[in-house]
Amino acid sequence: MKIRIGIVGYGNVGKGVVKAVAANSDMELKAIFTRRDPASIKIDDSNVAVLSIDAAESMVGEIDVCLLCGGSATDLPEQGPYFASMFNTVDSFDTHAKIPEYMAKIDAVATKTTAIISTGWDPGLFSMMRCLFEANLPAGMNYTFWGKGFSQGHSDAVRRIEGVKYAAQYTIPIETAVESVRCGENPDLSAREKHLRECFVVAGADANIAEIEATIKSMPHYFADYDTTVNFITAEEFEANHTEMPHGGMVIRSGSTGENNQIMEFSLKLASNPEFTGSVIATYARAAYRMSREGIFGAKTVFDVPLSYLSQKVREQLIRELL
Amino acid sequence: MKIRIGIVGYGNVGKGVVKAVAANSDMELKAIFTRRDPASIKIDDSNVAVLSIDAAESMVGEIDVCLLCGGSATDLPEQGPYFASMFNTVDSFDTHAKIPEYMAKIDAVATKTTAIISTGWDPGLFSMMRCLFEANLPAGMNYTFWGKGFSQGHSDAVRRIEGVKYAAQYTIPIETAVESVRCGENPDLSAREKHLRECFVVAGADANIAEIEATIKSMPHYFADYDTTVNFITAEEFEANHTEMPHGGMVIRSGSTGENNQIMEFSLKLASNPEFTGSVIATYARAAYRMSREGIFGAKTVFDVPLSYLSQKVREQLIRELL
Repeated sequence: MKIRIGIVGYGNVGKGVVKAVAANSDMELKAIFTRRDPASIKIDDSNVAVLSIDAAESMVGEIDVCLLCGGSATDLPEQGPYFASMFNTVDSFDTHAKIPEYMAKIDAVATKTTAIISTGWDPGLFSMMRCLFEANLPAGMNYTFWGKGFSQGHSDAVRRIEGVKYAAQYTIPIETAVESVRCGENPDLSAREKHLRECFVVAGADANIAEIEATIKSMPHYFADYDTTVNFITAEEFEANHTEMPHGGMVIRSGSTGENNQIMEFSLKLASNPEFTGSVIATYARAAYRMSREGIFGAKTVFDVPLSYLSQKVREQLIRELL
Repeated sequence: MKIRIGIVGYGNVGKGVVKAVAANSDMELKAIFTRRDPASIKIDDSNVAVLSIDAAESMVGEIDVCLLCGGSATDLPEQGPYFASMFNTVDSFDTHAKIPEYMAKIDAVATKTTAIISTGWDPGLFSMMRCLFEANLPAGMNYTFWGKGFSQGHSDAVRRIEGVKYAAQYTIPIETAVESVRCGENPDLSAREKHLRECFVVAGADANIAEIEATIKSMPHYFADYDTTVNFITAEEFEANHTEMPHGGMVIRSGSTGENNQIMEFSLKLASNPEFTGSVIATYARAAYRMSREGIFGAKTVFDVPLSYLSQKVREQLIRELL
């Protein structure tokens, strides 16, 4: 019997999960829950129900794990506890500062379900590496670099500026900083020394270009602490070159044992950030399903899940083929 | 109370574990067990007992975890089951083909102990990455490259050739192959296309140099399937440049989601292979200790251990600082 999957939220990540479920032969998609009019979502597979989020309760017993693909700002704080009270869930809640509060709310309702929160790649895989690396090399420093990649949050911030029609922001790790870390120099790096920010902006016909550029560069939190370049381009150029969502990054630990430098590094080079995030979320559906069957209930994180729970392979095969 | 550690076998890895235990503030070294005359091992710390392996039973109740640092060929097949019958253990058994058999033997005796086998970095960390990467990207291929690094097994094989006094063998990944994998080209690579082998040999005064070189290059399993270069050097040069044990390598998954290439990579750049291996083994002592206290007994692998069990940080701190 396959693991029956529900998807909550049909944006870029939700669409990535649809592809990921199809790629995992032990999973099948049963339903998509949406805040929109269900009739507006067309799915090729007639076995997949498209339902309003309010109808979730009607699917209890029909779905093994719901994968929550909404945003962390407003969707998940509401949908997380709602779904975890009825289903096993996996999400990619990524507002770092609010994770403890979110986790406590989920944990309170997940008394008979397993809810794995904050998967994806950061938080998620990068968190796992920070934990593993630090444990393996207690003397040392962790460095996380993001990019080169498209940042949704920063692009949205630029788009909200008056006169901006379209905007794409790329976060770019500074190569000399990365190399210094990789060489074991343990540099002390400010935000500005770690990443550059590059914006591609389509401005309205009567917009004040100079003012837009100044507004971007001085925006607190988002840009003020970074060296930022702003490129004004045409709508055609934007459409041709800036609608993909590549991303990536790396976690590097520069540590030492005795007198010896030891470098551990994990990196991602992703042609599609939402599809990869969806793929990681789907992987954790398997873990949530297995843990729930073992009675391991409550809110869990990637730190709580043994890697064997992620694999489709049984133990003997895992050991023979991958150990 | 600290986790009380015993070390079994005081070679390069065992010495690495001594340093690692000192670097973990929640561990303390209680004993070193050796096959040699215990009087031949001098330890600065008077709280550390140096004992014969045969005296292990006398330390039951005094030690929480024994870290087995012997070799996989002859030491561990004997010492693994012996120690796991009395203590929680961690080892780095690395004869891939014999792991299932070894694991079954350990599992049979570890009825009241936790025995984590085949840690270190390959098997160990690399195995974890192969498992994680494959689960995250079901459509794709795993590639493992080793080096550039000193290979003990291959160096020993050269040293056993008549006329050879000292030998060091380095395994070198072929950069064009690595780049092809990183670009998502999914190449089909033979052994010869993945790694070069480079030997530095000190020959005896009356040795037949040409014959040594031919013997090395044609040695089945070790060298015949690779492009190998052999450099004859002086004993002084050997002592100056070839007594360190650097190593490293990488696991790369080249996968896809839909039409999009996704690359995951884990790499190590180690100035000291035995010290890093010792450091990883020590990390798993924490996991073995915790699992045993929870009654999770038997032979375990790195696939069975949640990452939280490796960290010195409590759950709240892990989530706050690393998630």
